[in-house]
Amino acid sequence: MDNQLDSFFGAMADPTRRAVIERLTQGPAPVSELHAPHDIALPTFLKHLRKLEDAGLVRSEKRGRVRTVHIEAAPLAVAEDWLARQRRVWEGRLDRLSHLADRLPPDVS
Amino acid sequence: MDNQLDSFFGAMADPTRRAVIERLTQGPAPVSELHAPHDIALPTFLKHLRKLEDAGLVRSEKRGRVRTVHIEAAPLAVAEDWLARQRRVWEGRLDRLSHLADRLPPDVS
Repeated sequence: MDNQLDSFFGAMADPTRRAVIERLTQGPAPVSELHAPHDIALPTFLKHLRKLEDAGLVRSEKRGRVRTVHIEAAPLAVAEDWLARQRRVWEGRLDRLSHLADRLPPDVS
Repeated sequence: MDNQLDSFFGAMADPTRRAVIERLTQGPAPVSELHAPHDIALPTFLKHLRKLEDAGLVRSEKRGRVRTVHIEAAPLAVAEDWLARQRRVWEGRLDRLSHLADRLPPDVS
């Protein structure tokens, strides 16, 4: 779990890799199409893809000369759950503080 | 926005730093209390805190000899929103695929 979150958050700490994920949520795409909007050399781009693959966020398959990349959505859900849990604890604390404040004697200053 | 997500996701790609955030959602804490559960040297721990501070995820204030650390929840919400958006696009695509599948002729094989 820790390892999964480590590699997920590490993979998402880069705008190129986030852009690839944003594109792939709309459906699978060939590497060439994923690379096209990015002004970086193909080998550098392939390193980003490899990092996404290592984090379990994408998988790819080659047919003929075309490698097609697919998203694996499960790690996104794990990270979203973790963040949502933090928010709930935080908001619960704010609620309790707010109730405490309501019970304070009125400010007569 | 990109920079904010870069530094947020980078900050969260480490179990010690995530544990600090998990603790701080429950309320502010002195550095010594935050450090106690972690079997790492204090200078190393302070580097983790610095990374969280640089990412805008925590702030700290010193009173006398005690430095107290507070969470800043806004970046958590920004990252959760980004992840939720990816999920919605992805789930929307699955829904469309499922509707398409419903409209295929029945499989008579």
